[in-house]
Amino acid sequence: MEVTRQNFKESLNTVCSAIDEADFLAIDGEFSGISDGPSVSALTNGLDTPEERYEKLKKHSMDFLLFQFGLCTFRYDKSESKYLTKSFNFYIFPKPFSRNSPDKKFICQSSSIDFLASQGFDFNKVFRHGIPYLNQEEEAQLREQYEERRNQSNGAGTPSFISPSSKGPINVPDEHKDFINRVVEKVEALLSNSEKTVDLDPCTGFQRKLIYQTLNWKYPKGLHVETVETEKKERFIQISKVDEEERRRREHAKQEKEQEELNDAVGFSRVVHAMSKSGKLVVGHNMLLDVMHTIHQFYCPLPEDLTDFKEVTMCVFPRLLDTKLMATTQPFKDLITNTSLAELEKQLKESPFKPPTVQCSEGFQSYDTGTEQLHEAGYDAYITGLCFISMANYLGSFLTPPKAHISAKSKLIEPFYNKLFLMRIIDIPYLNLSGPDLQPKRDHVLYVTFPKEWKTSDLYQLFSAFGNIVVSWIDDTSAFVSLSQTDQVQIAMNTSEFAESYRIQTYAEYVRAKQRDKNPGRRRLEDGWSETPYCSAAAMTTAAYSYTHNRSLMGKRSISPIQEEQSSEGDEANSSSSSGWTHYSTVDKGFKKIKMDGGSAFESGSTQTYADIVESKTSDSWFKQPATGRPSMSPIQEEAGPEGVDESEWPQPSANPGKRTGKHKRRKSEESTSSGLFDVPQVW
Amino acid sequence: MEVTRQNFKESLNTVCSAIDEADFLAIDGEFSGISDGPSVSALTNGLDTPEERYEKLKKHSMDFLLFQFGLCTFRYDKSESKYLTKSFNFYIFPKPFSRNSPDKKFICQSSSIDFLASQGFDFNKVFRHGIPYLNQEEEAQLREQYEERRNQSNGAGTPSFISPSSKGPINVPDEHKDFINRVVEKVEALLSNSEKTVDLDPCTGFQRKLIYQTLNWKYPKGLHVETVETEKKERFIQISKVDEEERRRREHAKQEKEQEELNDAVGFSRVVHAMSKSGKLVVGHNMLLDVMHTIHQFYCPLPEDLTDFKEVTMCVFPRLLDTKLMATTQPFKDLITNTSLAELEKQLKESPFKPPTVQCSEGFQSYDTGTEQLHEAGYDAYITGLCFISMANYLGSFLTPPKAHISAKSKLIEPFYNKLFLMRIIDIPYLNLSGPDLQPKRDHVLYVTFPKEWKTSDLYQLFSAFGNIVVSWIDDTSAFVSLSQTDQVQIAMNTSEFAESYRIQTYAEYVRAKQRDKNPGRRRLEDGWSETPYCSAAAMTTAAYSYTHNRSLMGKRSISPIQEEQSSEGDEANSSSSSGWTHYSTVDKGFKKIKMDGGSAFESGSTQTYADIVESKTSDSWFKQPATGRPSMSPIQEEAGPEGVDESEWPQPSANPGKRTGKHKRRKSEESTSSGLFDVPQVW
Repeated sequence: MEVTRQNFKESLNTVCSAIDEADFLAIDGEFSGISDGPSVSALTNGLDTPEERYEKLKKHSMDFLLFQFGLCTFRYDKSESKYLTKSFNFYIFPKPFSRNSPDKKFICQSSSIDFLASQGFDFNKVFRHGIPYLNQEEEAQLREQYEERRNQSNGAGTPSFISPSSKGPINVPDEHKDFINRVVEKVEALLSNSEKTVDLDPCTGFQRKLIYQTLNWKYPKGLHVETVETEKKERFIQISKVDEEERRRREHAKQEKEQEELNDAVGFSRVVHAMSKSGKLVVGHNMLLDVMHTIHQFYCPLPEDLTDFKEVTMCVFPRLLDTKLMATTQPFKDLITNTSLAELEKQLKESPFKPPTVQCSEGFQSYDTGTEQLHEAGYDAYITGLCFISMANYLGSFLTPPKAHISAKSKLIEPFYNKLFLMRIIDIPYLNLSGPDLQPKRDHVLYVTFPKEWKTSDLYQLFSAFGNIVVSWIDDTSAFVSLSQTDQVQIAMNTSEFAESYRIQTYAEYVRAKQRDKNPGRRRLEDGWSETPYCSAAAMTTAAYSYTHNRSLMGKRSISPIQEEQSSEGDEANSSSSSGWTHYSTVDKGFKKIKMDGGSAFESGSTQTYADIVESKTSDSWFKQPATGRPSMSPIQEEAGPEGVDESEWPQPSANPGKRTGKHKRRKSEESTSSGLFDVPQVW
Repeated sequence: MEVTRQNFKESLNTVCSAIDEADFLAIDGEFSGISDGPSVSALTNGLDTPEERYEKLKKHSMDFLLFQFGLCTFRYDKSESKYLTKSFNFYIFPKPFSRNSPDKKFICQSSSIDFLASQGFDFNKVFRHGIPYLNQEEEAQLREQYEERRNQSNGAGTPSFISPSSKGPINVPDEHKDFINRVVEKVEALLSNSEKTVDLDPCTGFQRKLIYQTLNWKYPKGLHVETVETEKKERFIQISKVDEEERRRREHAKQEKEQEELNDAVGFSRVVHAMSKSGKLVVGHNMLLDVMHTIHQFYCPLPEDLTDFKEVTMCVFPRLLDTKLMATTQPFKDLITNTSLAELEKQLKESPFKPPTVQCSEGFQSYDTGTEQLHEAGYDAYITGLCFISMANYLGSFLTPPKAHISAKSKLIEPFYNKLFLMRIIDIPYLNLSGPDLQPKRDHVLYVTFPKEWKTSDLYQLFSAFGNIVVSWIDDTSAFVSLSQTDQVQIAMNTSEFAESYRIQTYAEYVRAKQRDKNPGRRRLEDGWSETPYCSAAAMTTAAYSYTHNRSLMGKRSISPIQEEQSSEGDEANSSSSSGWTHYSTVDKGFKKIKMDGGSAFESGSTQTYADIVESKTSDSWFKQPATGRPSMSPIQEEAGPEGVDESEWPQPSANPGKRTGKHKRRKSEESTSSGLFDVPQVW
């Protein structure tokens, strides 16, 4: 269903009840650009820390407009064993709703606009008929304005016009005295004749102000004064004789109108509020930017600090799931070669997966996945949901007895909650919204600075004595170089001692220098960010959801109780020393793959664009996910033997499921042989 | 004629010959926004200096995109006594032409976009089919890149791939050695068999680089190596056996292709170059922003300094004429009540003016001024041209004998050259591109700072003892207050001595403080801006125009020789003391009008928007041009008795032309009675 300003009001109930009845929601956003600063490749260094990545995206990606929002709701119909879907494709545009409303500016990036244009994106629909929105602060301000006006309003006055200097008889400038006197004469005439109202001639805002002030002071009761706008946008004042009852009736009607105006202005934000309030699982594909934009545009400017961002995100969307992260995690990782959205959707229709049984709800346009409509947000949200269902159900196939349907609330899904895929970070697969992030060892990483003429090949030559290396460019004159053996780091450092054209530091030295460079005074708790404002802002709309009682857990650990039982916090903070991560610094095929592709992307000096990024949803052509270069991840392993869960007999998934035609072939004995696969961080 | 990327190449000749044969050109631009900072009302303070206005527009208006450019060419057909028009409506969009091309970002202002949307603007046409462009520097860089590649190209190499470290046998990383060896084997096979070419499998950019380097080193002659892109955007390498002649032929073909690519990339800038090269009169309505955007987008980032801006503008467009300035100048000023473009066009069809005889050239869409298509750039350019013709011809009616047609090259027009209308500046009607600007006396102006709660009425009250005042808001806490009598300034200063909540400075004090605040070290000649770079940049395309020999005059005076004869430079610099300006500080009706409207615009706290500005082309509704508040201007007066001009008997125009039905009624005796009208600055 396409929703624009033209049908938004009449559709809102449909949207809200679709959300309310859903088992889970899938979302997708289209933006007017990706980076207003560095190229996307520089924006996504392979060795970014989550903090660095967040800072870069916040700084360089938030001034774009999220102008199409896709929402697809999925409700499971038990009796028919299928999902019923309702998909919505919202066009968003911050149309100023009045002369006083914020006149928002947003950036467009030519490559992104060009890419969307080539996909048939309808810019006219966005700009002509996009639904407006307000963030929480703007909404609060507007509400306050209305409130203030209402409270002060007595009799004739429109209090926002009253200045401090005009409490007594007001000072009418000489040249307006005649004008005001004529108005007073007209009012006197009105009071003494049988007419109910008198319309004044159109006049300037300043004159209207003088009229309001004069009449408010002279006639505190018995008059209703109102500014009316003609079709030609000319404003004139209408004065009516009213008794108290009539005045109250008019005030009430005015308030109702104002409330409606306010609702119209809040616009699309109401849909996001409804999603938030529902507390339902929200699924997206490679969704970090979607989440950041949604919060930035419809809630509040993003906080400085990653920790605060996690907090506000958890308040707004207490349960998020990223299908790209899921697809790159065991047991899916070995089965899925391409995790771009379109490819993923195709692969998840084939064995060993099963295409989910879904049906479009009556009255909704049904998408045909055969004729792709990629990059229409509503379609992308729809197939993201399909991917989630396929993967969730696949997990059910490991149960004894196998289950064909795994609900969005199943414990099997929980390990994937609130972990957002981090694009192109070599050793940190996800941003952990509900706890601290993974801290991989980077002992084998060197920070190298050099003349701007240097290319990847120069770095290869420089480090030729040290075997295979991985180069992660930072900018023209610096890069991270990962050696294959940590014990070679000191040798490399020694040989560079007398070098003039380049300089080598260990990663630890680099981090220390960077922290020194930061203003040491600016710390989270010192600069005024605290837990409360975010949550209270978000809670304005999320209060209904039970998550709020969990708030005290935030910023500490995952909200999954099972995980908490499995490892201590100490383990988590030091996960880099766990067995899964020590495996990382060896060189394997996946590692090489990063090097080549990374090298080529930078070598040709090409600018990575929105098309590239979204292409990674389509073809993954320019950044191949290393097959085993990332540390393997299996949240499911952690799920082994969950307590008090109905899916209690949890087998290890097979390393190579092959062409299994039926679930009956999977047996515990068969799968247990593959446990060697799970060289993964034990801590999530 | 609508011109998009799809028909640009085939239309370019038509455009260029229309320009070449034209008597004058009219232009108009549509932008994605007006101000990314302060509201438009704060952007256009009534007491801005030209320098301040330029700085503000440069800082806050240039990051928007000029995305529709209207050009209408007018050629006078003597035999038929009519103008033939060709109008073009260009859609402009900086589509990246390759992966290496600049990925431009531009801002959109919601109110502007919303306004254009309401006018039926076709955003899809802009973003899907807009014509790309490059500025001079980008073009030069691209040209250089191609040049460099061409010069270095010998045999197999694509030199941009060769890094300094690979002059000898190149260092192939271990894991690529097998791959490269297989390529070499294929080349050896090619050289010994009868095939002409071999296609390699698609590979990464880094692998392609290794192939180029290896083959360049191993086979300096006899091979042609080329990267070919498939329809799916996959790149593979094609290797061909070639003799010297074949190699040269291929090189040549490649160069031609590159040249065409370069021309495509320069795109719409070529049209602006052609306009510039022609040296023709370029007419616009309220055209300062159009001119600034055109130079910024298609020539170079705008210079810091207003003087430098004037210089570069004169190089690019040696003759500009602003119909809004013309219409607000005598003899038109008293005849024309509304100078917005649409209203002006209507009024100039009525007596005493005559609708110009124009005809659309064959093959061009004709605009019907009855069914307005306002804010389509091509239409606006067209009616701007009509306005110019009407007004020019009206000037001819004062000649003896009267002339019905006044050409764009007539001396009668010259006084209007290169003076761009300055919106809403009380006492400086235009920006003088070809000389220093007017410097009105501002002795009666006070600079007042106060608490942010203050409103206009508080200022009225504060200055109630001093009669009528004009308030020009600067920001929340400061404003200029113009007193009606200069001799009251000292009294106002004295009374404020012990005030705590507010502070009063004279305008002169304000100016001195502002200049102190500016970095005193940054001066035009010191910071590297000098005459040459701009002119040489612009001269790249304007060399053909004879204006270049006039360059030494620039920044000094008008280019009109007649004016130079009429007054000394000393007079001009001190024009504030000339009789026309002393008249200024008296209070009259127009003065009051500014106060009211200015007051209302600020009082209501409204944000002035693009719609407001463009509306001033349509209705002038919110800033009424004060009838006599601006100093009257009559450049024509200066023209009295020009020497050596065919229109030699130049009468004074009538103050009130009334309903003259025929030119024969105008006689010198009649008009001489009205000379009192021209209380104007004598110096232009």
